[in-house]
Amino acid sequence: MLKLHGFCVSNYYNMAKLVLLEKRVPFEEVEAVPDGSPAFLARSPRGKVPFLETDEGFLNETGAILEYLEQLYPEPALLPAEPFARARVRALMKAIELYVELSARLGYPEAFFGTPVAPPLRERCRDELLAGVDALARHAAFAPFVAGERFTLADVYFLYSFDLAKGVARALFDEDLSARLPGARALLQRLGENPNVQRIAADREAAMAAYLARKRAGR
Amino acid sequence: MLKLHGFCVSNYYNMAKLVLLEKRVPFEEVEAVPDGSPAFLARSPRGKVPFLETDEGFLNETGAILEYLEQLYPEPALLPAEPFARARVRALMKAIELYVELSARLGYPEAFFGTPVAPPLRERCRDELLAGVDALARHAAFAPFVAGERFTLADVYFLYSFDLAKGVARALFDEDLSARLPGARALLQRLGENPNVQRIAADREAAMAAYLARKRAGR
Repeated sequence: MLKLHGFCVSNYYNMAKLVLLEKRVPFEEVEAVPDGSPAFLARSPRGKVPFLETDEGFLNETGAILEYLEQLYPEPALLPAEPFARARVRALMKAIELYVELSARLGYPEAFFGTPVAPPLRERCRDELLAGVDALARHAAFAPFVAGERFTLADVYFLYSFDLAKGVARALFDEDLSARLPGARALLQRLGENPNVQRIAADREAAMAAYLARKRAGR
Repeated sequence: MLKLHGFCVSNYYNMAKLVLLEKRVPFEEVEAVPDGSPAFLARSPRGKVPFLETDEGFLNETGAILEYLEQLYPEPALLPAEPFARARVRALMKAIELYVELSARLGYPEAFFGTPVAPPLRERCRDELLAGVDALARHAAFAPFVAGERFTLADVYFLYSFDLAKGVARALFDEDLSARLPGARALLQRLGENPNVQRIAADREAAMAAYLARKRAGR
């Protein structure tokens, strides 16, 4: 049986967990908190979560894990089969990751853990995040899903990246990212009605207090 | 016929160009320099290159373009067919992009264009880049290629990302990234013997002087 290693507060972990649940793949959750130890790095070379334990070994990087699950468990399809449509979904996944998620990450220490971010990093976070959201407004369909009529992996990225990015923009820059992205609010509400999304949110909520205490203690 | 838009100095442009050449796909090169104009953003939502013009419309994001070409033109294969091996290659592509390429980009203004980078960004560039290269040393095979015995998309990313990252590390931190990554030097030498790689390097060289003059003039 597949084992998903990580912890329920990690948004990347939750992306993989949602895909496993949507595809009704049997899997086991194994709590793994990055500690930089040689044992951890032997399973996850950059020391991150999630990683997936398979019969053939460990797989890293959320994007690669989601594509692996898509290839092995094609139903329900979370990528279109037709090449151009498939590439469009992948481009949206990439755009959300590079321009929304990674930009917002620069502001995490201040937004979520009370550690001020140096002004040049803060400024970069703001510029890149707002430009990324504006790019997504041009790029995404929100009709009603990110790439069009069907729920795809681009929605999985959006659900777990945009939410945190909104928190950063609100806390650091008093900016409302939903207001910049027509369709975002309605899509988040719709995705929130999915029972698997609700289960993941409940698991996250249950794990949050312990997580924040650990991070604020600098561990 | 496919049209690849961008310019010959862009390392992401050159990734797509190499894959087109390796697969012997007929294509046309169209020079496109990001200018932030509405016309440009209509074709490339985040204002970046490359983008690929197809009969069905424009495709963005290098990773999505490479996967699209792989699906449409499966020979020669640049991804393994078997799911686990395929996922490993994708994980390496991702690791090179997120931890090497994007970390190094923080240092580009100072390393290549003579614009000093603020200390907090410089420090982040150094910490992330060195950690990324150390992670790649654990993750990659270099046997002789990044993912093992065969040339894959991970080598395409490596070729065009590691070279620039080396330049950043040398210019900003006096660090020799090749020395941290056993196998890197031999692989770069081997890849440099590929006639398509040589053609791309010659095109890049021919375009470089004009590019640097433009960047240094702040355009």
